[in-house]
Amino acid sequence: MNRPLTVGVIGLGSMGMGAARSLLAANIKTLGLDMSRDACAAFQAAGGQIADSPATMAGQVDILIVFVVNAAQVETVLFGDNGAAEALAAGAVVLQCATIPAAVSRDIAARLDNLQVMMIDGPVSGGAAKAAEGAMTVMASGPAAAFDRAAPALTAIAEKVHRLGDQVGVGSTVKTINQLLAGVHIAAAAEAMALGIRAGADAEQLFDVISGAAGASWMFNNRVPHILAGDYTPLSAVDIFIKDLGIVLETGKSLTFPLPLSAAAHQQFLAAGAAGLGREDDSAVIKVFQRLAGDDLPLPSERPESSE
Amino acid sequence: MNRPLTVGVIGLGSMGMGAARSLLAANIKTLGLDMSRDACAAFQAAGGQIADSPATMAGQVDILIVFVVNAAQVETVLFGDNGAAEALAAGAVVLQCATIPAAVSRDIAARLDNLQVMMIDGPVSGGAAKAAEGAMTVMASGPAAAFDRAAPALTAIAEKVHRLGDQVGVGSTVKTINQLLAGVHIAAAAEAMALGIRAGADAEQLFDVISGAAGASWMFNNRVPHILAGDYTPLSAVDIFIKDLGIVLETGKSLTFPLPLSAAAHQQFLAAGAAGLGREDDSAVIKVFQRLAGDDLPLPSERPESSE
Repeated sequence: MNRPLTVGVIGLGSMGMGAARSLLAANIKTLGLDMSRDACAAFQAAGGQIADSPATMAGQVDILIVFVVNAAQVETVLFGDNGAAEALAAGAVVLQCATIPAAVSRDIAARLDNLQVMMIDGPVSGGAAKAAEGAMTVMASGPAAAFDRAAPALTAIAEKVHRLGDQVGVGSTVKTINQLLAGVHIAAAAEAMALGIRAGADAEQLFDVISGAAGASWMFNNRVPHILAGDYTPLSAVDIFIKDLGIVLETGKSLTFPLPLSAAAHQQFLAAGAAGLGREDDSAVIKVFQRLAGDDLPLPSERPESSE
Repeated sequence: MNRPLTVGVIGLGSMGMGAARSLLAANIKTLGLDMSRDACAAFQAAGGQIADSPATMAGQVDILIVFVVNAAQVETVLFGDNGAAEALAAGAVVLQCATIPAAVSRDIAARLDNLQVMMIDGPVSGGAAKAAEGAMTVMASGPAAAFDRAAPALTAIAEKVHRLGDQVGVGSTVKTINQLLAGVHIAAAAEAMALGIRAGADAEQLFDVISGAAGASWMFNNRVPHILAGDYTPLSAVDIFIKDLGIVLETGKSLTFPLPLSAAAHQQFLAAGAAGLGREDDSAVIKVFQRLAGDDLPLPSERPESSE
């Protein structure tokens, strides 16, 4: 190649911005694009360059990383008006990082293949803090040639890349299963804490005992402190699990497979959404019980501005 | 006191036997009792002494540890024919270690209080291996005087004693909440692995990725290896979670509190029981999906006796 490797990042939310900045930090030429002008300005301030459209970006990059929120947005940025797909050079790689159904991922890969564009199905996890450090986790499947080409970009953004074989779709399946468990565990943490509080147990004691016992989960240990602090600032929102457990259930339906716990958890997140809590932290799913039964949840500890 | 501290253990299953042997190892005079003659013989072989009945035992001990399976058995050994309660000396302590509803625990404590007998509500966790090492975890509440008196016995059997205040019932509530999460997490692990296998993911890869990701739980990480090995030798049986999630749901009903995830998980364990799997390891709840859909689960790895 006569020019240095160039990477494009579409979607500069907390995860995409972390990836884009990590690419810059690795001295990789990086273009960014987001519907939000603020996000674009922030990326420019960090030394990045903003493209005019997905198609314009696609003409300039070797690797296109798609960090949008859902399958509809992936479709739009790749195949909509001024979409990227047709403008990518033969041999380019699309790294698809959104949480989407595996069937959608396979369909998109097939359409890109017709354009001689390779795809890595690579949903990510790890949260905004890890993304900012270039330390996210990628659950990735796709052809070896695509991994070879995308290696510098993957190294820049990820601490761990799980290579899940050469078939697109496996990455999305593994991420879907992870989200099944994550969503069920958050809803279970809420159900458990709400019942314990209702039964008269001390919320802090419950957490102290169970976080070190066989009832622990990554989500219980991570999210219950939000409940104890009464702080529902969204690190990951209720709406995300309405969407992700929706993908889980859609996957089950497409495979004619019953998922009773996932369905019950999805209903709890929908109940939280119905109560207007969709943009609160996902731990706010416990407020469904509070709305029903009026039980007192822990309150935010006093902060300077609220003291009298 | 003119004679050395004497402790009685009723129920010499894997947990009770571990406790009784740990007491002997701490040079505490210990009597044992179990309906199983084999268990009694094993305890005698370990240097223990077997009592003739709960009442006989009760007349000789300062601390009576009840390690039976359920509330009905606790009732029988304390208040049934030749029950222990009436025969205990004033000031004796009953350490109640079974997983039972908090309301039952409070009722029993009140009846013991009428006999001037103190009670510690102290359900345990940790499994047979920890019990054998004198390293179980006790989730305990009750009067300080009872803890003072029982201290040598608690030190002998437990690595960690969570002191949950002086009100009997809190120990059982915390254990109930722990079992809610443990049961939901096992059923969720089964649902997740079954869907992943159905969707074509590799079971070992799924476990490797998720056990280190946000979808992990203590139970996922502990039980899925049983599924991967195809080994359903019961370390803890399906029947235990039919019972314990039953206590969870009974607790919810008594408090008029909805528990949709616990209810869904309980139905999965009941489905496993209906399929004749009640005595298999609790991870066998995944076989509910196999019975329905015929998907292949991992098979036991070849063992010497099965190789040809």
